[in-house]
Amino acid sequence: MSSNSFNELKKQIDGNKEVVGILGLGYVGLPLAVLFAKAKIKVLGFEKSNKKASAVNEGKNYIPDISDADLKEVVSSKKLVALTDFSKIAECDALIICVPTPLDKFKQPDMSYIESACLEIGKYMKKGVFISLESTTYPTTTENVMRPIIEKESKMKAEEDFFLAFSPERVDPGNEKYNTYNTPKVLGAASAKGMEIGTALYKKAIQTIYPVSSPRAAEMVKILENTYRLVNISLMNELALLCGKMDINIWEVIEAAKTKPYGFQAFYPGPGIGGHCIPLDPFYLEYVAKNYAFDLTMIHTAGHIDNLMPHRMTIKITSALNSQKKAMNGSKVLFLGVAYKKDINDERESPALKIMDEVHKKGAVVTYHDPYIPEVKTEEHHTYKSVELNAKTIADADCIVITTNHSCFNIESIVEQARLVVDLRNAAKTSSPKVYKL
Amino acid sequence: MSSNSFNELKKQIDGNKEVVGILGLGYVGLPLAVLFAKAKIKVLGFEKSNKKASAVNEGKNYIPDISDADLKEVVSSKKLVALTDFSKIAECDALIICVPTPLDKFKQPDMSYIESACLEIGKYMKKGVFISLESTTYPTTTENVMRPIIEKESKMKAEEDFFLAFSPERVDPGNEKYNTYNTPKVLGAASAKGMEIGTALYKKAIQTIYPVSSPRAAEMVKILENTYRLVNISLMNELALLCGKMDINIWEVIEAAKTKPYGFQAFYPGPGIGGHCIPLDPFYLEYVAKNYAFDLTMIHTAGHIDNLMPHRMTIKITSALNSQKKAMNGSKVLFLGVAYKKDINDERESPALKIMDEVHKKGAVVTYHDPYIPEVKTEEHHTYKSVELNAKTIADADCIVITTNHSCFNIESIVEQARLVVDLRNAAKTSSPKVYKL
Repeated sequence: MSSNSFNELKKQIDGNKEVVGILGLGYVGLPLAVLFAKAKIKVLGFEKSNKKASAVNEGKNYIPDISDADLKEVVSSKKLVALTDFSKIAECDALIICVPTPLDKFKQPDMSYIESACLEIGKYMKKGVFISLESTTYPTTTENVMRPIIEKESKMKAEEDFFLAFSPERVDPGNEKYNTYNTPKVLGAASAKGMEIGTALYKKAIQTIYPVSSPRAAEMVKILENTYRLVNISLMNELALLCGKMDINIWEVIEAAKTKPYGFQAFYPGPGIGGHCIPLDPFYLEYVAKNYAFDLTMIHTAGHIDNLMPHRMTIKITSALNSQKKAMNGSKVLFLGVAYKKDINDERESPALKIMDEVHKKGAVVTYHDPYIPEVKTEEHHTYKSVELNAKTIADADCIVITTNHSCFNIESIVEQARLVVDLRNAAKTSSPKVYKL
Repeated sequence: MSSNSFNELKKQIDGNKEVVGILGLGYVGLPLAVLFAKAKIKVLGFEKSNKKASAVNEGKNYIPDISDADLKEVVSSKKLVALTDFSKIAECDALIICVPTPLDKFKQPDMSYIESACLEIGKYMKKGVFISLESTTYPTTTENVMRPIIEKESKMKAEEDFFLAFSPERVDPGNEKYNTYNTPKVLGAASAKGMEIGTALYKKAIQTIYPVSSPRAAEMVKILENTYRLVNISLMNELALLCGKMDINIWEVIEAAKTKPYGFQAFYPGPGIGGHCIPLDPFYLEYVAKNYAFDLTMIHTAGHIDNLMPHRMTIKITSALNSQKKAMNGSKVLFLGVAYKKDINDERESPALKIMDEVHKKGAVVTYHDPYIPEVKTEEHHTYKSVELNAKTIADADCIVITTNHSCFNIESIVEQARLVVDLRNAAKTSSPKVYKL
């Protein structure tokens, strides 16, 4: 990078005059956009969905972690503008990519969103910009996937004509204590100057910036965090199944283990892993490891356990019904909660949907209730609408399956009225012969 | 249990007049014996080793976590007496078993110490006693192994003529903050009355008693805690090997992940697992699970990773030597530290010894230095004596391998003088071309 370009960009940032472009206005990009805009920085939000872009520009908030008032404020002050026209990338001094990185059905990373964002950037960007990727992906993506696309498309050279960095999003939807602002942000840039620019920029929106030596180290940090979670949840799932056979209450065991004042962090079993991070991130790493002739046996084993969980939960439901001399075929099964965790409105990768598909296939009459999710479509393409939870729907069900422990559920009252309950979240605090626990 | 026996035992305990027998005066039993004795309770310590029993009776302390003064005090006041004559079990109101439960070479639990203790107890115990097992073992041991042996030998019935409980030891040798006294103690008794007795007894020696519903739940608590550690250390070991191939510094990644303020607990890679808990406890569970036709795939995978670590570390050492155009065969390899973790004098299951055997087999001239361990015998029956660490021994070594990061090592000075260092503990804080890290 010419010193001129660096100095110019640094001056822009120091004077709070930079324009920040954020690609992708989902649960990662929009909170970040609002934080920059609140710091009086001009933010352009690039979003392919017309619906989302319009919502933002009308101040209509669709991310629960953002306060409605904050969004309204930055939109009405024009500090945040959402655009579907990516040519306006040319106006930006910094570009932050917050697009999804799904896995396909074969657990291969789907890099098309990142690639598409890089193509748009390469096409329109001006010289001397800072580009940061926040999407979780496998280590080496920034240097080996992103960099060549942008260089080819822009005919510019990284670290000469633009700066490249990776800074993983650490958003935990529904976390009331830690949000985008107060969760320390790991940043790995491809050059020392890029790190200086990136730190100066990000620290306007985020409380603490934690530097690491390279983009690939930063990429690995995020994968490590979620691999840790995946492996530990999977371990608890496997131990829960064994404890069921050994007549040991796993929930009691975990509470007791928590009294150890060092060297233990509690994880809880459940119907399976869900959400947009834990079921995905570790498998990016498993994928790239193959390129190094390396098998990640722990991640593989965790994936194996979790793939089987919905099936094993179906067996639990079948056994519970069997105890009341009922077959799954023809039984009415009501699922409580389809969100992948409590108190949120997100059903991505939710194990509840997989169990619904499986018990449907076995002939059960499936319904669900979730106050936060009015309608779902399962992998098997069944569409369900949330039913009301009332005395009739509770009494009608041959079995109620607690798949998500939303705080608003009055579990004691539901258990009292129900014929049979399969509690996969340890939601029922008192024991009862009609309650079967994971 | 007749109310009479229960009331009598309770009265003894309430009046501080009970005699407590502790079987096994190792790193679990002796600290507990000293705590009871300090609470002015008469303690008989039963120990098969004449050497250990004599040491205790002479006030000679062999457990670093006990203060020498404490041991001297309780021995001179005769509150603690060590015995090799197990017939004195007849004088005890409570019996606490603190014997080892090793694994044999085929990773099968060796229950012979527990069985032998139960036989002695069954042979000599009086009626109405409280018996607690502290040895880590697989769930169901107390009820299905211990109980029948004691019942048969004593011709008494559990919960009628004596109380049975399991209360896992949670000793972490070298932990300066948490010791036997201030680490909460999980207790699972076979009956409500047994729980009442057990709580009254243990709370004299230990700050907090945490009750669980059964001995098997208490057995599972301890296994869960150490399985959590095994799985996470193994995960870090596997990721460290991948990071080595990907040119990512795993230590930097872990430090960065630690900045996540929730949902992460740091574990560190190393040359392999060691000690008397983590390499053993999870495999008790894997063993008993087979009895329930259940495969514990996470524990199995962790074991697989750790079995391979010494071999993989040997390959690291070979590569490091190769970079200096040296073969392992004929090279002088000096190991720094053979204790399984830093600042302790225990080399049980230490991976250092396994690596020493393997590099010896490849023709290296092996030496070691450990200020806490003057002599070791490896699995392959080689005996080594700790050599002095000085300018000559450092300069003589073709390669120095840091296997244990004892705080007393002056790593910077060692690195400066050494020809080549393989650092398996991230002990060297500055990078150098002659330092190879895990």
